[in-house]
Amino acid sequence: MSEGPIPKPEKLPPLTRPTEQQGKPPIPAPPDRRVGFALVGVGHVALEQVLPGFRQCERAKLTAIVSGHPDKARDVARQYDVPPERVFSYEDYDRLKDVEEVEAVYIALPNDMHCEYTVRAAQAGKHVLCEKPMANSVEEGQRMIDACREADRLLMIAYRCQYEPHHLAMIRLSREQAFGELRVIEANNGQNQGNPNQWRLNLAEAGGGPLPDVGIYCLNAARYLTGEEPIEVTATNLRNPRDPRFQEVVETTTFTLRFPSGVLAVCTCSYAYHETRTLRVLAERGWYELNPAFSYADLRMKVGYAHEESNYVEERRLPQKNHFALEIDHFADCIRNGRKPHTPGEEGLQDLRVIDAICESAGSGRPVSLPRVEG
Amino acid sequence: MSEGPIPKPEKLPPLTRPTEQQGKPPIPAPPDRRVGFALVGVGHVALEQVLPGFRQCERAKLTAIVSGHPDKARDVARQYDVPPERVFSYEDYDRLKDVEEVEAVYIALPNDMHCEYTVRAAQAGKHVLCEKPMANSVEEGQRMIDACREADRLLMIAYRCQYEPHHLAMIRLSREQAFGELRVIEANNGQNQGNPNQWRLNLAEAGGGPLPDVGIYCLNAARYLTGEEPIEVTATNLRNPRDPRFQEVVETTTFTLRFPSGVLAVCTCSYAYHETRTLRVLAERGWYELNPAFSYADLRMKVGYAHEESNYVEERRLPQKNHFALEIDHFADCIRNGRKPHTPGEEGLQDLRVIDAICESAGSGRPVSLPRVEG
Amino acid sequence: MSEGPIPKPEKLPPLTRPTEQQGKPPIPAPPDRRVGFALVGVGHVALEQVLPGFRQCERAKLTAIVSGHPDKARDVARQYDVPPERVFSYEDYDRLKDVEEVEAVYIALPNDMHCEYTVRAAQAGKHVLCEKPMANSVEEGQRMIDACREADRLLMIAYRCQYEPHHLAMIRLSREQAFGELRVIEANNGQNQGNPNQWRLNLAEAGGGPLPDVGIYCLNAARYLTGEEPIEVTATNLRNPRDPRFQEVVETTTFTLRFPSGVLAVCTCSYAYHETRTLRVLAERGWYELNPAFSYADLRMKVGYAHEESNYVEERRLPQKNHFALEIDHFADCIRNGRKPHTPGEEGLQDLRVIDAICESAGSGRPVSLPRVEG
Amino acid sequence: MSEGPIPKPEKLPPLTRPTEQQGKPPIPAPPDRRVGFALVGVGHVALEQVLPGFRQCERAKLTAIVSGHPDKARDVARQYDVPPERVFSYEDYDRLKDVEEVEAVYIALPNDMHCEYTVRAAQAGKHVLCEKPMANSVEEGQRMIDACREADRLLMIAYRCQYEPHHLAMIRLSREQAFGELRVIEANNGQNQGNPNQWRLNLAEAGGGPLPDVGIYCLNAARYLTGEEPIEVTATNLRNPRDPRFQEVVETTTFTLRFPSGVLAVCTCSYAYHETRTLRVLAERGWYELNPAFSYADLRMKVGYAHEESNYVEERRLPQKNHFALEIDHFADCIRNGRKPHTPGEEGLQDLRVIDAICESAGSGRPVSLPRVEG
Repeated sequence: MSEGPIPKPEKLPPLTRPTEQQGKPPIPAPPDRRVGFALVGVGHVALEQVLPGFRQCERAKLTAIVSGHPDKARDVARQYDVPPERVFSYEDYDRLKDVEEVEAVYIALPNDMHCEYTVRAAQAGKHVLCEKPMANSVEEGQRMIDACREADRLLMIAYRCQYEPHHLAMIRLSREQAFGELRVIEANNGQNQGNPNQWRLNLAEAGGGPLPDVGIYCLNAARYLTGEEPIEVTATNLRNPRDPRFQEVVETTTFTLRFPSGVLAVCTCSYAYHETRTLRVLAERGWYELNPAFSYADLRMKVGYAHEESNYVEERRLPQKNHFALEIDHFADCIRNGRKPHTPGEEGLQDLRVIDAICESAGSGRPVSLPRVEG
Repeated sequence: MSEGPIPKPEKLPPLTRPTEQQGKPPIPAPPDRRVGFALVGVGHVALEQVLPGFRQCERAKLTAIVSGHPDKARDVARQYDVPPERVFSYEDYDRLKDVEEVEAVYIALPNDMHCEYTVRAAQAGKHVLCEKPMANSVEEGQRMIDACREADRLLMIAYRCQYEPHHLAMIRLSREQAFGELRVIEANNGQNQGNPNQWRLNLAEAGGGPLPDVGIYCLNAARYLTGEEPIEVTATNLRNPRDPRFQEVVETTTFTLRFPSGVLAVCTCSYAYHETRTLRVLAERGWYELNPAFSYADLRMKVGYAHEESNYVEERRLPQKNHFALEIDHFADCIRNGRKPHTPGEEGLQDLRVIDAICESAGSGRPVSLPRVEG
Repeated sequence: MSEGPIPKPEKLPPLTRPTEQQGKPPIPAPPDRRVGFALVGVGHVALEQVLPGFRQCERAKLTAIVSGHPDKARDVARQYDVPPERVFSYEDYDRLKDVEEVEAVYIALPNDMHCEYTVRAAQAGKHVLCEKPMANSVEEGQRMIDACREADRLLMIAYRCQYEPHHLAMIRLSREQAFGELRVIEANNGQNQGNPNQWRLNLAEAGGGPLPDVGIYCLNAARYLTGEEPIEVTATNLRNPRDPRFQEVVETTTFTLRFPSGVLAVCTCSYAYHETRTLRVLAERGWYELNPAFSYADLRMKVGYAHEESNYVEERRLPQKNHFALEIDHFADCIRNGRKPHTPGEEGLQDLRVIDAICESAGSGRPVSLPRVEG
Repeated sequence: MSEGPIPKPEKLPPLTRPTEQQGKPPIPAPPDRRVGFALVGVGHVALEQVLPGFRQCERAKLTAIVSGHPDKARDVARQYDVPPERVFSYEDYDRLKDVEEVEAVYIALPNDMHCEYTVRAAQAGKHVLCEKPMANSVEEGQRMIDACREADRLLMIAYRCQYEPHHLAMIRLSREQAFGELRVIEANNGQNQGNPNQWRLNLAEAGGGPLPDVGIYCLNAARYLTGEEPIEVTATNLRNPRDPRFQEVVETTTFTLRFPSGVLAVCTCSYAYHETRTLRVLAERGWYELNPAFSYADLRMKVGYAHEESNYVEERRLPQKNHFALEIDHFADCIRNGRKPHTPGEEGLQDLRVIDAICESAGSGRPVSLPRVEG
């Protein structure tokens, strides 16, 4: 890594008056100062989101590709300027140990591979940024945390929303009680799954249906908006065995989380309805929402409250940033500065515990209690 | 009632091209051809909604006032051109029997008075339009139906949304499966109740908390959108005894209805968060929603689907009509033409049965099954 | 007129917390305390707007009909509870003098009849509420003012927007310079005229094309938003003689008004494009707009400004009121209390002067100056 | 440039049903297959827009920096991975001739430098992508075209909107007359200029005020929406010499363009009101608009028309793409394939001619005719 100071932001006199938004130049770190990542897996999320995200990173850079499809991996490597010698198969994966250009891995594999490839990365001395859900079981999740701790490597779960301006604004409104106490959270994340053979519909690979894949966004949001851990879960599953897609996984799950402060979070996730991704907070003196809330881009925030004779419904148009670049850069900063990431393995593990409780409640038809957690 | 034909709509040459909305003159029936109503109760909904609604009716007219507050009733009568001799106390109520200017009553009393005043009206030979919830128990509801049947009078429950253009458009999209099969319905109806002494917070008068008062809109909507009756209910209550408002009634109730076709309706109602009234249908190929959905005015409808490279989010701006005038005119038409109203007593009774099941589930923490109903 | 106090508003304890909009019951005056109006003309605006407006008045009532179509007038009278003896032809019009139930007239005739029927009404001792444009020439307008002054009767021009909550909110933001000084106003009012035989397309009857009919809303709005009178006008006409509708009147007019403070108002009106009615103020630190702005109902207000990292676009949902009821009630109040109306004849006359200047500029291709006016 | 086929797009089975938007992976060309650009100028637009744009290019890459500020240039070069030997001063600029890594230049200099640096680039054998306005005079613009023709180099003007999905959709609706014939176009582009010393407010450097800088977007849009050239211009300037910012340039210009088909374009541009950038087409059977229209990001498209009882207002959410990456990639493709760019020098020259006519009309207070142009 080269020496010398990192270039500073350029100071230009502002173009417009302070009552208008000012342009802000990005200040990318020089490539030789960035953290090198290997991307592990080149499926949908990798090709459509993670790779374009890397191109907008300011602290991280893509330096290697790991894939089970050598031709595809080679093509992707050429496209993204990764030299051919840094394309690895799953078998070669442990050889990353000796590749100093790789300081960290981004794991974008099917859910059932998260644990193994996290553990092997840690053992190869690499920091790990792993897609959600962290794993298919609490036990696996714990193993990942332990492996990283033992190897003294950082582990972060890719909860991209927690690094994104709209969700951060929702969190701030909630923590500041800008509209009074929160009473109810409504969240919804669903899409109409297309391909009956996709791994998301295979129970062994996916570890579940819409709940761990898309419902986890609702669950995670309820936790970061309240800053609390749920103490009770009630859930209902919809199975739809006549549909060939839903032979192994359920079609739709709805669940209600009860939080210590009395907030109820009412959540729905599905693989059977048209793409819908919403998050709404109902507070004492107003409401605020994202719709879409969990999409990769173009989130929209609205806030509603009464003022004099009017009901105000504000759209707050925040900067649209690449979610993946934001989270990858956060992890790169943590690596450089030896800080624990904002969404460490423990954050992912807690979601797995709640997912277990949701599944139990949906199966038994009874509310399931969760232990009170401090902080 | 005077003779002669009812005036016809005036035909004017259109002002604008057919690709623009054309103005439409109302065609009110002459007052002597209309159905005369006594308004029973002059509380919030009567003063703010029903009375202004009568002024926009085209088939009905206000001809009497019944109230427990003689001064208020007298003032209201003067304002709305009701002669002083047609102002009645609760004790006088049965004297309506001899008042030929009154063919029907609109009951806008606290819930626990609905049954008695419906039965007495029927016995006085008057048709009854009764506010929702129909009654505080299934037994009361049945009694009301029986009393009207015995007296050969019509009974209608004031489910105003079922007469209103936006909800009718939602129903049509659902029945025509314009965006494929329905999968999930999300509904929410809540407000931040202000006055700890209001009858809505008194269990004996209200017969329940937010569920029979505002949650009933969600429940009723799920039924008219699907055209089905729920077969299973799961519910969660939030009690908040630290708040003086919630000594007798619960603060918030969430409930999930399962319908025979597999649709799940996820509903929330509350007296503790800022006014929020929404209804959304998630179907296979799109979604459609009202927000606000259950307010008295200014409903807004949106429809979302994908088209080519775009996601279309359409606002469909329909005519804003006075909900109360629409439902009162419907009942007046039914009376004139001897037809059963679209939302008869049986419609209200079915909601009471589901409300009972919701309460049972919230209490027991178990799903409650409901008998399958044909039609 | 009956004696005794007018009933007061009913005081009910508020239903919801003060941070929600409270329901507000109307407080209609008893019919015997209201000002009686004769409606003169039963064309589009009368049937579709003015008559329904009267039904929502609180201080005025409809007591007579004047029309050149006796059958239509008789039908309308029956529908709106006007006794047959108070239906008048144009020839009978002066007999209103002896009809004490009529204190004022609402003139909803083609533009070229405004002057005559205003003068005759004043001479019959009636106050006059006249549709816009006041007349087809400045000379006619002055004659109307003079006739009412001589007869000691009030004259009001039906600029309904100036009585309506959304426009009042726009005016308040402008006068308070809530977003700094106004710089530019953009206004647009147009519709796709349907019927080549409609009087609006006949120059003699209409007195002009889209400018006096719909463009006058833009012009009037620019004046009431700034509170100033324009000092210079530049205009462009689009004639379209190939279209049978535009043999006598122009298709589209655009005009720019320059105000003493430096504000420019850029306005467009047309009979050839799809209904569009917008009004936007561009100020130093934000913008605010109505869209639709000049429609009869469902106006929508938005406000935009920057705040921290966001651009806020607020929809301010104000109460939707019947514009015609508001303006008629205002005039009734003026009559009862001997006050000059907010939009007297002089307000209409000033618009006619500016319309003359616009026509002159469009004809000559040169800017036309207007005299500076105080106040 | 390396040999071998360019990698193809990866084919993955679709994740969702065809009625949902499908994710689309970008297919960047390998860096060694891309066109190398020198960025000339590192002011606001370069730092905030062009440089981030290059990072999202798929066919182009940044290979050199030209600037009058050596320190800033060196920092930027490090940030964007440009080797120090490819940082040039204005004096060194002609040395680009010998730099084979540079095939083209992107000129992001103050307007008065566009001509010189285009001519010198062409003479150095480089293709030129030049910011709008192309130059400060028609004569300069013609010189730029001639120089590139003589050097057999391509010249493109950076009309980014013409490469961007929302504007392309507006063009398609217009050309297909999806809502009938166009009648009026309304366009507005303005911002509240902040710094009295900025070169945009200096007449010699900027060549004009808001018109060539931001008004040019309105003008260009009117031309590409209609596909016609204006035949008459009427304009009004607002000078504001009391404001220190407007000593040399005007504050606001409004202008109306008349097109051969009868369409009128009503345009406003300013340096004195809060950021507002809108574009609306008023057609016979509907309207469609962008708001914001000319911003760098987050454009929004709406379409309005009548359908049955409703007015539909559709938001069509199209993919948000980086405008600069799109236009740079277009130019790179043209260079690779020897095609003339979609917005060549002649496109920029025509805008300069119309700008001249607008200035003349604003000065003389008379309409100015422009020659009819074919195609």
